Amino acid sequence: MVGTGLIGASVGLALTAAGVDVVLRDRDPEQQKLAEAMGAGRPWSREPVEHAVLAVPPHAVAAELRALQQARLAATVSDVASVKTRPVVEAVQAGCDLTSWCPAHPVAGRERGGAVSARPDLFRDRTWVLCPLPHTSPAAEEAALALALACGGVPVRTTPERHDTAMATLSHVPQVVASLLAATTPTLARDELALAGPGFRDVTRLADSDPQLWASILEGNRGPVAAAARRLAAELGRLAEVLETAPAERAAATVHTLVASGNTGRALLPQKAGRPALRWAWVGVVVPDRPGQLAALLAAVAGWRVNVEDVSVEHSQDAPAGIVELAVAPDAADLLQERLADAGWTAYRRS
Amino acid sequence: MVGTGLIGASVGLALTAAGVDVVLRDRDPEQQKLAEAMGAGRPWSREPVEHAVLAVPPHAVAAELRALQQARLAATVSDVASVKTRPVVEAVQAGCDLTSWCPAHPVAGRERGGAVSARPDLFRDRTWVLCPLPHTSPAAEEAALALALACGGVPVRTTPERHDTAMATLSHVPQVVASLLAATTPTLARDELALAGPGFRDVTRLADSDPQLWASILEGNRGPVAAAARRLAAELGRLAEVLETAPAERAAATVHTLVASGNTGRALLPQKAGRPALRWAWVGVVVPDRPGQLAALLAAVAGWRVNVEDVSVEHSQDAPAGIVELAVAPDAADLLQERLADAGWTAYRRS
Repeated sequence: MVGTGLIGASVGLALTAAGVDVVLRDRDPEQQKLAEAMGAGRPWSREPVEHAVLAVPPHAVAAELRALQQARLAATVSDVASVKTRPVVEAVQAGCDLTSWCPAHPVAGRERGGAVSARPDLFRDRTWVLCPLPHTSPAAEEAALALALACGGVPVRTTPERHDTAMATLSHVPQVVASLLAATTPTLARDELALAGPGFRDVTRLADSDPQLWASILEGNRGPVAAAARRLAAELGRLAEVLETAPAERAAATVHTLVASGNTGRALLPQKAGRPALRWAWVGVVVPDRPGQLAALLAAVAGWRVNVEDVSVEHSQDAPAGIVELAVAPDAADLLQERLADAGWTAYRRS
Repeated sequence: MVGTGLIGASVGLALTAAGVDVVLRDRDPEQQKLAEAMGAGRPWSREPVEHAVLAVPPHAVAAELRALQQARLAATVSDVASVKTRPVVEAVQAGCDLTSWCPAHPVAGRERGGAVSARPDLFRDRTWVLCPLPHTSPAAEEAALALALACGGVPVRTTPERHDTAMATLSHVPQVVASLLAATTPTLARDELALAGPGFRDVTRLADSDPQLWASILEGNRGPVAAAARRLAAELGRLAEVLETAPAERAAATVHTLVASGNTGRALLPQKAGRPALRWAWVGVVVPDRPGQLAALLAAVAGWRVNVEDVSVEHSQDAPAGIVELAVAPDAADLLQERLADAGWTAYRRS
């Protein structure tokens, strides 16, 4: 494992949990120590390995690949960079051997970076893209596939070009927009900022991302990002023109069509594990903020043989109680609410 | 309460919980019934009320206000519309009495609309904007303020114009962007859509919103929305040009500056209740997906007198186990992890 930031350390945790012997190296000794302490692997003393994972920013992939190959340190190599065409071009220019390398990209991540945010389940049920080149050997592709599966990922095979175009739309321009929107807040007064609701937080969550990593990603995927940014700018301009000039009814109709298209587009997103909340019914319960109350609630529920599929806790500042929402099978929700009420809890159905 | 959609029914639930006698009316008998069944209030038989809340879309505020005033049904009135200037203009044109009305806007909401999604705590610790007009009587403003406080909101006072300009930046253009980004997914192939990560879901969450409501909001705030959309389009165009033409180093520096500005902007957002996760330490536990396992876990934790502040459950498709993360006081986390391990659970520290 070369690089023990969020992705590298998470791969290390997942592989270690799967029984794989993992060795780690990071240029930053602090990240490396942290990853070791978390159980992501043991220090690498440059002994040759079966498969090396380059968990470094896109611009550093080709140089690290070349260094590994010159010292004959890895039989096969894959990487995790979220840009795929540019590192291939750079690897060719650097004279790398392309047969032992399978470019790859696990589509997972969090706004918070570094080994400290690593998790063994970061890749579970997430797409893990493999972009084998015409030169990539079967052994290298198989090693990259085995890595993806060992981390719990779902392998998807495509070309570097298709990967980069799709990522410009699905990740890189969304990052740009989140940062641009978040960057407007300094222009607002403090009382105006209080008008930022949960929606603004959702839209701008990506704006917490690492500037250095994203400079490498966006600069590394310039063409597709610029094209997608121009398309979005043109659409914003068209909407602005309608709002500035069209009669009320046509302006409203244009917005209606836009928001409805967004509804349709969202519905096309593949359903992920970990978010099947729609299959469940939610029952809300008011729970006093004292040790053991949540456990008492769940013990009562378990006593009725109701399986709780998910739990969501909402706290209020300085309030003596919080709302705990329990996700259960839809046919169990009414009974659960009744039983809770009988047992003295304040319970309500959420949907 | 006129209107028992998400906002109206949630206000009804909050007021009823606070001991206020609430009467409800909605043009849609199904929404009305649902709101009554949820405990948001009793049916309104057009008896005069102390204070009426117009929980209707922005374009309907002036007409409903006029109707209430002509029948002398409410001593004072406030509304919840997320656009403020236009309803004032329309109320003036409709010949409404402006003294008994305090325009207002609770900044809360969810992508899912309708009474079915209503919650008594929807407004807790959320900003509740009051935009009293020069004509607004002290009685009307006080009634609107009392309403905000009874619902657990945090009152903020501003003008309709400042409200609308801030909302264009903080809510209306983010909605447009979320819908535009989500609307791109039909242009992608199925295997490309698999590349949509959690970030794309965050950025586009607002795209699940109601087209009819948003047609009313965006059409009702045309000038400020068009101006903010044009500013964003210009910024996207500038970035695209840099990516198309600038040398690598300058392109990377421009992106770095942009993402860093986004970091700064996000940090300016006021801290809300309900998200104090950063104060806590998280311990992850692997929990078999069988009835009662979550309860058994929390009972064990409660037995050690550790207060669980928050719970997050992650399920994996077809996996026999899920990861449950427990938020506890930072000084309790190590002990908790040890105890869990001693008791036979697979537990790890998340940060």
